[in-house]
Amino acid sequence: MSKDCIFCKIAAGEIPSHKIYEDDYVLAFLDIHPCSTGHAVVIPKKHFESIEEIDSENLAFLNDGARRTAKKVYSVLKPDGMNIGLNDKPAAGQAVPHIHLHIIPRWKGDGGGSMHSIVRAEATEPAEEIIKKFV
Amino acid sequence: MSKDCIFCKIAAGEIPSHKIYEDDYVLAFLDIHPCSTGHAVVIPKKHFESIEEIDSENLAFLNDGARRTAKKVYSVLKPDGMNIGLNDKPAAGQAVPHIHLHIIPRWKGDGGGSMHSIVRAEATEPAEEIIKKFV
Repeated sequence: MSKDCIFCKIAAGEIPSHKIYEDDYVLAFLDIHPCSTGHAVVIPKKHFESIEEIDSENLAFLNDGARRTAKKVYSVLKPDGMNIGLNDKPAAGQAVPHIHLHIIPRWKGDGGGSMHSIVRAEATEPAEEIIKKFV
Repeated sequence: MSKDCIFCKIAAGEIPSHKIYEDDYVLAFLDIHPCSTGHAVVIPKKHFESIEEIDSENLAFLNDGARRTAKKVYSVLKPDGMNIGLNDKPAAGQAVPHIHLHIIPRWKGDGGGSMHSIVRAEATEPAEEIIKKFV
């Protein structure tokens, strides 16, 4: 547990939350600033800040908890789709420094977009140039 | 392999792609409509349409491949953060019916937002009402 981490406090039950899924490793609860009905956050109970920091075992638990939460949300709220993802580090919009996955239920005609809506690069490097860096 | 699935064809090498990561189960390549430099897509080589359809073993491989791809992107392109996530079903913006994770590198001052930028609900139900449905 990380001192002063709001998600650690939620995991420990020190701060109340609207829980929709829980297992030994993971907790899912409704986002307090929802962008759609049923928007939830899935966290590991143990504190990790980013995807670079979390170990593969805890990331697997987190992803499995997210899968179970997603299925539960599909079953209960019956959305037409959902976006599931994370903001890794503040430059990507991470607001709480405890890794968490967003589950955002979507309905046809809700006016929303896709992962592409998060950022629109004015100009990106050509793929031919980028790929050279990976070789 | 699903007939006429563009991502199955990419996985099979029938359509070229700019590959940045590959293992026995997963392939990652640069998105052809990138919203940031290095925007990549991670797919399971086996065909599954949505998170409801994919089995837990293949989802674990997909998430592990995404973690490895993310680390590689951090190492090579040195972004300040990234958004990692999926559009599940067309209502959430899924454009290709073969489950895939987006890895979107982010830089400070790129003008982008967070997962919340995907959709802004005009009005969501109060948490107190939603949570009753999960009990």
